[in-house]
Amino acid sequence: MASPAQPTAAMATLARMAKGQVRCYSAPVDAAFPASKRKYIPTSGTYPKGFTVSGTHVGVKATNTKFPDLALISSETPCSAAAVFTTNKFQAAPVQVSKRILDSTQGQGIRSVVINSGCANAVTGKGGLEDATSMATKVDEHTGVSESGTLVMSTGVIGQRLPISKILSKIPDATQSLSSTHDAWLTTARAICTTDTFPKLLSRTFTLPSSPGRTYSLAGMTKGAGMIHPNMATLLGVIATDAPIVPSALQSLLKSAISRSFNAISIDGDTSTNDTVAILANGAAGGAPINSTQSNDYAVMQEILTSFTQSLSQLVVRDGEGATKFVTVRIQNSPDFESAQLIASTIARSPLVKTALYGRDANWGRILCAIGYTQGVAPGTVVPERTSVSFKPVDGSPVLKLLVNGEPEQVDEQRAATILQEEDLEIVVDLGGGEKGELGGEEGVYWFCDFSHEYVTINGDYRT
Amino acid sequence: MASPAQPTAAMATLARMAKGQVRCYSAPVDAAFPASKRKYIPTSGTYPKGFTVSGTHVGVKATNTKFPDLALISSETPCSAAAVFTTNKFQAAPVQVSKRILDSTQGQGIRSVVINSGCANAVTGKGGLEDATSMATKVDEHTGVSESGTLVMSTGVIGQRLPISKILSKIPDATQSLSSTHDAWLTTARAICTTDTFPKLLSRTFTLPSSPGRTYSLAGMTKGAGMIHPNMATLLGVIATDAPIVPSALQSLLKSAISRSFNAISIDGDTSTNDTVAILANGAAGGAPINSTQSNDYAVMQEILTSFTQSLSQLVVRDGEGATKFVTVRIQNSPDFESAQLIASTIARSPLVKTALYGRDANWGRILCAIGYTQGVAPGTVVPERTSVSFKPVDGSPVLKLLVNGEPEQVDEQRAATILQEEDLEIVVDLGGGEKGELGGEEGVYWFCDFSHEYVTINGDYRT
Repeated sequence: MASPAQPTAAMATLARMAKGQVRCYSAPVDAAFPASKRKYIPTSGTYPKGFTVSGTHVGVKATNTKFPDLALISSETPCSAAAVFTTNKFQAAPVQVSKRILDSTQGQGIRSVVINSGCANAVTGKGGLEDATSMATKVDEHTGVSESGTLVMSTGVIGQRLPISKILSKIPDATQSLSSTHDAWLTTARAICTTDTFPKLLSRTFTLPSSPGRTYSLAGMTKGAGMIHPNMATLLGVIATDAPIVPSALQSLLKSAISRSFNAISIDGDTSTNDTVAILANGAAGGAPINSTQSNDYAVMQEILTSFTQSLSQLVVRDGEGATKFVTVRIQNSPDFESAQLIASTIARSPLVKTALYGRDANWGRILCAIGYTQGVAPGTVVPERTSVSFKPVDGSPVLKLLVNGEPEQVDEQRAATILQEEDLEIVVDLGGGEKGELGGEEGVYWFCDFSHEYVTINGDYRT
Repeated sequence: MASPAQPTAAMATLARMAKGQVRCYSAPVDAAFPASKRKYIPTSGTYPKGFTVSGTHVGVKATNTKFPDLALISSETPCSAAAVFTTNKFQAAPVQVSKRILDSTQGQGIRSVVINSGCANAVTGKGGLEDATSMATKVDEHTGVSESGTLVMSTGVIGQRLPISKILSKIPDATQSLSSTHDAWLTTARAICTTDTFPKLLSRTFTLPSSPGRTYSLAGMTKGAGMIHPNMATLLGVIATDAPIVPSALQSLLKSAISRSFNAISIDGDTSTNDTVAILANGAAGGAPINSTQSNDYAVMQEILTSFTQSLSQLVVRDGEGATKFVTVRIQNSPDFESAQLIASTIARSPLVKTALYGRDANWGRILCAIGYTQGVAPGTVVPERTSVSFKPVDGSPVLKLLVNGEPEQVDEQRAATILQEEDLEIVVDLGGGEKGELGGEEGVYWFCDFSHEYVTINGDYRT
């Protein structure tokens, strides 16, 4: 029998269930979406013309007997395509295969993206490459493309081969059930989930300066970062638009947007073997193609795509493993964007900052400490006597100053506690460069979550 | 009333107490040292000639009504001195003052090190610098040194001024109670503790080639890394020897030893504002001074000091906040030491690796992943097809291979579980360079601990 001092494992599980932190390998059934997360699941959407999608049950993991785990995003006409991939040296087979397809086609004539969850097809050698290739080829066959028309992604367990014949046998179903409805988009977004507690799907419409009367659409789905035994990997994202964009401009747009969105979030600082975000542009809404990085349309599209990928990537943070807080850290008056991002990411990765936030603790010393040990910033970026730190409440009330020009403030602990009770928080670090005219006024932003007991439970106790 | 699904805070505290994980601001009384840690507390020692030490109660933190929190290490004769300091840009006042003293004296004529716990004297502006200086000056006065004979260190809360008059008023007591007994050394080691669960003190004797019949002694104390609300900072270390070493050789010896010891451990990856390790050499045991980095004596001393500081720094890992495991990660066949250390430190800092180890999970995918995203290694260091990972059990039984030349092994999960039940574990990563003659055969080693629920509790829940 358990002594009173040692809560039983069953009790701990109950407590986790109560907090919606019991994670499954596939996204849970609707009824199980945590109440606090339902507001992030769209009930309708505006999807790009000419795209159809499907989520199909394969059972990549044998224990998954009913949830969709094969996602297909397909365009009726050829698309421009671009992607950014993990920088991890151990690149999964689908990463290598998709890269090769983009290289050989120069991002032209792509029609589909096929994704399985439940197995990452990573560290699987030559056989794994063959599996990834055959997934893409099978989709090509069934969508009537001669070759190299499909990008492939996988997420799940590392070091295991895909149950490839099961997957291939379901690709005809996947292509036959392609649809453009909101429900289809949502099912597809669910099919790429692993330990996510809710599907992550966004859509929006926009116009471009060259064709103000024309409505374009943008839709995207993503899945959570954070890995769970035995290595549920990875951050994946797929974005589709019916705007016409040539491949070189599309790659440039995506790279720039990702640097300020998916590359500006942190759950636990681990970069997985499979991380991939791809974008398809089929031009089905018509209008003049964006074919130069110098055009007005390009500039507007850059703003739209950056803000869209920011919203999408923020959903990943909202669903961080064990996360109880959503924190924005803004670094102001830096000499350059890169130094600002380095400082922001160092704060976002500090276990001491993350546990303090979990404890609702106005621990500016730890933030300061992380600023001070950031590696690689431009000389003169961090000067203690010029550094200020404050909390910006989400309710629009005045900022709470913690440190001003290197001098600690007398902090109203009561107010700090109130601010920290909210799920959302913004930490503002002013490096003091711009204000005083010595440095540029560049700004960097990162979004991150806290480190909780649940994070440890999810990532450490999974087997027990 | 608490529901069964929500263990009460009191129950959680009881559970933590049962595990010896309740942390106080000062080292606990003898009876409270966790049983599992007592083996690390020496019951006798061999201390360097001519050094006397004391630990005195000041009450730097008002809540500390009885534990020693002022440590004094003093030599009867002038010493060579050297130190390594934090690279954090927010350097605490004692760091700035000690640096200045070492610069102005060129490391000659130092007699003492004075240390307080309970307040870090960090981010305290000009007043803080004055406080640190006055601590050092007061010790000079009472040890009969005209000036600049004392180094100063502080550890504890950031952003608060020292209760300097209380400290100064106890310095006469501290000098009067200086003693060379084992008990005095242990009391002194306790006085520098903050959230440590046991004092960290080591001593040993050695000989040098130039004087084989002569016995030298080396003693050192350190305190835990890891910070706790409201910012208990810091890693501190003091080493004393009666060997004769000139300051330039001493600085070089210390720097090299620290790069393979205190700079090769990780608790949570946060680098504090106060980290300092200092060494004093008074030459009281006689013999020819070590005055060149080319001599035999220097080479032997380097080996001795490196191994000594490794043992000392490992005690910090043993007492990592919430730690349940002591893990050695060894990177073999790297082109250079720096790349090996970068990979080792990336593994040691990965929250996913650390939580998997806490969960006793043979999660080699996470280790691989961390190797793959290590930044800054020499080109060609990490080649997936050449990388092998194994667990080396502490009982001397054969290694458990997890990955061989990039191919996953069929892992005997039962054996993996048995190996992971032990407190100690060694992870061996072979980059495959040396063996195959393509790269050098350099090796790097890091020591780290796991991330547990208790880590989060200690660092997040302190106030609640």
